[in-house]
Amino acid sequence: MYNFEYKNPVKIIFGKDTISKVANEVPKNAKVLLTYGGGSIKRTGVYEQVKTALKNIDLIEFGGIEVNPHYETCMKAAEIVKAENIDFLLSVGGGSVLDATKFIAAAALYENGDPWDILSKPETAEIENAIAIGAVLTLPATGSEMNGNSVITKFETLEKFAFSSPKVMPQFSILDPECVFTLPDKQVANGVVDAFIHVIEQYLTFEVNSPIQDRFAESILTTLIEEGPKVLADRNDYEPAANFMWSATMALNGLIGSGVPQDWATHQIGHELTALHGIDHARTLAIILPGLMHIKRTNKNDKLLQFGERIWGITQGNDDDKIDAAIVKTVKFFETLGVPTTLHEYGVPEETIGVITARFEKRGAKLGEKADIDFKEVGEILRARL
Amino acid sequence: MYNFEYKNPVKIIFGKDTISKVANEVPKNAKVLLTYGGGSIKRTGVYEQVKTALKNIDLIEFGGIEVNPHYETCMKAAEIVKAENIDFLLSVGGGSVLDATKFIAAAALYENGDPWDILSKPETAEIENAIAIGAVLTLPATGSEMNGNSVITKFETLEKFAFSSPKVMPQFSILDPECVFTLPDKQVANGVVDAFIHVIEQYLTFEVNSPIQDRFAESILTTLIEEGPKVLADRNDYEPAANFMWSATMALNGLIGSGVPQDWATHQIGHELTALHGIDHARTLAIILPGLMHIKRTNKNDKLLQFGERIWGITQGNDDDKIDAAIVKTVKFFETLGVPTTLHEYGVPEETIGVITARFEKRGAKLGEKADIDFKEVGEILRARL
Repeated sequence: MYNFEYKNPVKIIFGKDTISKVANEVPKNAKVLLTYGGGSIKRTGVYEQVKTALKNIDLIEFGGIEVNPHYETCMKAAEIVKAENIDFLLSVGGGSVLDATKFIAAAALYENGDPWDILSKPETAEIENAIAIGAVLTLPATGSEMNGNSVITKFETLEKFAFSSPKVMPQFSILDPECVFTLPDKQVANGVVDAFIHVIEQYLTFEVNSPIQDRFAESILTTLIEEGPKVLADRNDYEPAANFMWSATMALNGLIGSGVPQDWATHQIGHELTALHGIDHARTLAIILPGLMHIKRTNKNDKLLQFGERIWGITQGNDDDKIDAAIVKTVKFFETLGVPTTLHEYGVPEETIGVITARFEKRGAKLGEKADIDFKEVGEILRARL
Repeated sequence: MYNFEYKNPVKIIFGKDTISKVANEVPKNAKVLLTYGGGSIKRTGVYEQVKTALKNIDLIEFGGIEVNPHYETCMKAAEIVKAENIDFLLSVGGGSVLDATKFIAAAALYENGDPWDILSKPETAEIENAIAIGAVLTLPATGSEMNGNSVITKFETLEKFAFSSPKVMPQFSILDPECVFTLPDKQVANGVVDAFIHVIEQYLTFEVNSPIQDRFAESILTTLIEEGPKVLADRNDYEPAANFMWSATMALNGLIGSGVPQDWATHQIGHELTALHGIDHARTLAIILPGLMHIKRTNKNDKLLQFGERIWGITQGNDDDKIDAAIVKTVKFFETLGVPTTLHEYGVPEETIGVITARFEKRGAKLGEKADIDFKEVGEILRARL
């Protein structure tokens, strides 16, 4: 395996009836900004639980954070943080709210130029400080609860960019699996697919002799395949909800990606479909991944065979047959969850492919674990998913 | 799975040629006590690498920490820490040195009574502060590099006790797998067995629907079974050394034990064999575990069958047959590594069983994940290993 450094100080508080523990975690004298999304936390009772637990805390609220949160919205919140001298951000919601909260935390204290640089020039924009963050997670999917990653969309230009910093890791994240009980099917399915493909991005690359990382990745994939359908079948069954939630966290907390190559091309291409057509993040991944597996089968040959055998039990045929079968199994899994995997099913016209390849050409992008996916190959991957 | 809390802020620096990075991690103005053992670090060159990296740091040394480190030795070091106003402890060595360093760190600042209480009354002795610790790990085995656990022996009374506190987690641990190259066979074998049984203590209990934890545990067991013999066969092969080292860390950093029942009876009984007969820690575990699996097969029935099938491929016969076969496979694995598994092979007389059961009777001990192993059953487990 490669050399690596790993540090993840996020405190996880996991389990039934844990939301009230937020009272022990938020600093007593903090002035808190509670961030949330479209208001589902008020329907589900999570908002009430948090407010009750924090009744003695000086707290103001910032709701209305979008799915695929907007840079413009975050900047409004960052202004409030500055104006109100907020010193703790409490994110109550799913990955979008938490990603937005991370950007707000960094942008409010950013003094090295335009906060947009944090997203558009992540290699050079140094985040020296950020407001402290805590999270109550209501939707297992993104893994944002145990990492320093954030993805933000600039509404003005329909650009979707990511940044990452240890400074925006939550101090704590409360994960109560009963939050899954109130999720609609679509959000459960999206969460399962999102977590699954987070694992794939760190696993389905090339062999570097990393059996622990490989097997941990396979552990999460197998668990998602087993537990995802159980969650969809019975939303009030605690154990599958808990296993799904813990899988999604472990999928992207840095552990399985330590010491191994990583891909992330599926995400980068998928982001364009969200930015241009508003398709749910996870669904864009379900569209792109099968095309990427198909087009990059030479780069990924050994790992595709390992994935096929260990995850789907595929042992018959030549390498190409086995890889084809692994792609079919993966597509069928997403479809079984109710997630379509082709562009036409989402009404995306063929012309979009040209728009996306032009964007990657302009950026001079070289994607994937071998940095060899150029804009032309992005086009091939997309055409394979028409 | 059970509710749990998990927080592990240890920074891991893993890989080839990483020891010099200690210079970036030790606080610049700290007064450092470098702790080490019997001097093997001087023969292997690790001492020289550390000293060179820290040439500008104010540093004194405390060597001679024993395998199964003595309380009495630690207390001498704690006095030096106080007298010299040490504010950082750098452990350079294996798990024994690091465990001792953790106790020194806590004892030096302990103000609630006799520091022996930290070990003898771990439920009530509160560790409010500890000197900051860093580690350069030279021997994969105990997992001490990524947890807050420590095991110390009182030489005067031959008692071996453990304590655990987040305050003594290392700030950083440097893991250079090339340190494995200079280890004798016996230390490699002991390390593999130690890590293996750390996993077993957190896995081989009863079913609580925890597929992620189970599969992560099985991932580590399988990797140790594959990589351990490779390390023994060729000490200069980097990749197996690296995989062994990472396995040992993951075996006991709290992750696989989160949300599941834990046993630790094998350790508690094994500690007596070390205290009374000086048998290497890992070897005491290899003696006890097969007896525990045999005697506690009813409690552990489902997990023993899962262990047999997933780790050893055992699918034939009735439950008792399968469990017997799993025990045989486990014993053979330890023996293949050169680790004997019966009391007589270590020259332990039958009378020792009475001494040990009397100790457990006096303590009123109830061991195991169901707290149902009393002193009589401890005797049965030991007699099964004559």
